[in-house]
Amino acid sequence: MNPPTVSQSAETNSPALMESPFLKALVQQIRANDSYGTFRSWSDELLLKPYVVSKAQKREISVDGDVDPITKGRILAFYRAIAHRIEAETGQLCQVVVDLSHEGFGWALIFCGRLLPVTRTLRDAQRFGFDSLEKLAAEGDKLTQSGVEYIKRFPEVARI
Amino acid sequence: MNPPTVSQSAETNSPALMESPFLKALVQQIRANDSYGTFRSWSDELLLKPYVVSKAQKREISVDGDVDPITKGRILAFYRAIAHRIEAETGQLCQVVVDLSHEGFGWALIFCGRLLPVTRTLRDAQRFGFDSLEKLAAEGDKLTQSGVEYIKRFPEVARI
Repeated sequence: MNPPTVSQSAETNSPALMESPFLKALVQQIRANDSYGTFRSWSDELLLKPYVVSKAQKREISVDGDVDPITKGRILAFYRAIAHRIEAETGQLCQVVVDLSHEGFGWALIFCGRLLPVTRTLRDAQRFGFDSLEKLAAEGDKLTQSGVEYIKRFPEVARI
Repeated sequence: MNPPTVSQSAETNSPALMESPFLKALVQQIRANDSYGTFRSWSDELLLKPYVVSKAQKREISVDGDVDPITKGRILAFYRAIAHRIEAETGQLCQVVVDLSHEGFGWALIFCGRLLPVTRTLRDAQRFGFDSLEKLAAEGDKLTQSGVEYIKRFPEVARI
């Protein structure tokens, strides 16, 4: 597969943004699942592009039926990147479960011992995405920080 | 669908066993999902029979490929019955997630606020079952009791 041409919006991302520890962790997750080396020649920006979905684009995505495996993989990589960041900041091993049971509804959970540093209900998961890479990085950082705080607050529960 | 003839093993269950709060909760879960009234005329013993799988029967079930939806439903009902019992004993609302990702491997989780009173790794979930109804009831009670203890130990985490 040839890399598609980098669009205007991807080109305008500041290099500083791509240095965000969360976006780096997310890129790492995507590359880790790239068993056939499809993405080897792709830039990090290009790998993250599917996470940027405008409001207009979201409206065009049908929420009837189940979430397709590619979108599910994208959601999983997002939460795995958060888990990876939480591990890096706390030294605690985290597990990720994304359960999409009914047509785009479900749960995203990160757990660590008996503690859930991250719980999110998912709705219309078919439309999973963010307005911009900045928003993606901000959301990842926010969930990471709040997860780290839960682990600091209940260290005993996280260690069981 | 006509009810199959009750086998010897089902007939020999003591009435006291069927009064177990856990088995009652499990029967309730199964009947709750019986939208078409298929099981209306079935006895409780008959509904629970698929949970009894002998070692020999287990060996005959292939663990290649994904877990079929009926077995998955059975696993879900088992953990929902535990969640229901924990709710009855603690007054805390519980959520159940069964995540079977890779050919019978996965997680069964019951959570309550930010606490996980029950976490189980699942292996060879295609073969989910118990030696007898006694064992089924004992396992359900054991997981319920240990879940209740976690909630009593960390009430603050369960209440978030």
